[in-house]
Amino acid sequence: MEGGAESVATRIMVGVNESTLKGYPHASISSKGAFEWTLTKIVRSNTSSFKLLFLHVQVPDEDGFGDMDSIYASPDDFKSMNHRNKIRGLHLLEYFVHRCHEIGVPCEAWIKKGNPKEVILHEVKRVQPDFLVVGSRGLGPFQKVFVGTVSEFCVKHAECPVITIKRKPGEAPQDPVDD
Amino acid sequence: MEGGAESVATRIMVGVNESTLKGYPHASISSKGAFEWTLTKIVRSNTSSFKLLFLHVQVPDEDGFGDMDSIYASPDDFKSMNHRNKIRGLHLLEYFVHRCHEIGVPCEAWIKKGNPKEVILHEVKRVQPDFLVVGSRGLGPFQKVFVGTVSEFCVKHAECPVITIKRKPGEAPQDPVDD
Repeated sequence: MEGGAESVATRIMVGVNESTLKGYPHASISSKGAFEWTLTKIVRSNTSSFKLLFLHVQVPDEDGFGDMDSIYASPDDFKSMNHRNKIRGLHLLEYFVHRCHEIGVPCEAWIKKGNPKEVILHEVKRVQPDFLVVGSRGLGPFQKVFVGTVSEFCVKHAECPVITIKRKPGEAPQDPVDD
Repeated sequence: MEGGAESVATRIMVGVNESTLKGYPHASISSKGAFEWTLTKIVRSNTSSFKLLFLHVQVPDEDGFGDMDSIYASPDDFKSMNHRNKIRGLHLLEYFVHRCHEIGVPCEAWIKKGNPKEVILHEVKRVQPDFLVVGSRGLGPFQKVFVGTVSEFCVKHAECPVITIKRKPGEAPQDPVDD
């Protein structure tokens, strides 16, 4: 539209994570909501105008043994844990990538480990998307005292514009902290 | 894309205001930035997929005499003041509407009086846009103590997703509180 900018696709980063409810390898309700919102309200049928960049941040277990039967672990156990986590992440991303391929929207997807807030900020800085879409559970102030709100942190600190898509009221599970 | 939703345009509300610097009837730097961002990054050449809804909130003078030479005003003076304000608002909106007509994006525009935060929230509730775009001066925490930050208020309280477009560093005037 502006001096040939039309030829370069608008790059939308979408933060996605696993469901706390439905188990492996389902995406969280809010991730799916944010993704579907982006398709319906922004991309629409203009698939060649946009490129979606899916970022999945895996939080390492605090003690490094969360998934194992015993705290006596050999180096091989760690290796297989890392491998399992990688597969989990890939399966999660597969859902989004597959949906994009179906519709014909170009996309990329990758996994990073760490604190979601810090990693998202860092990846925004590195990748420089045009904007970031994040899902949100839409928790009230009381519930938020006990859980991290990645979306609010991104809105405040990310170097690009951020749009937060709240879960629809009908989609919230019985315990709204679940997702 | 989703069961015929493609036929209904995505309705984007854009909050716009006057420049504190350039004088009548110029739009603020951040309003223009938010608008141009929406065109370049979201609408692109897909003009028939979107409809822009421009909301301009006029803040009434606190004592009702800000624009006048004397505080001894007749009812006629008030009438002409209201008329002048209306014309100011229309001239501001004209810029955005004209630009949309040039490009071929459908749009609507209207003026409301009151506290921008409250009015924007109320208009979002009434008009139900798909999302709201607001410009922001991108002030630091120290500067924000002294001025209202409409964008942050909207992000927290509006009933629809909100995307805040910060002024580019190169566009900020000498006094960053100006716009």
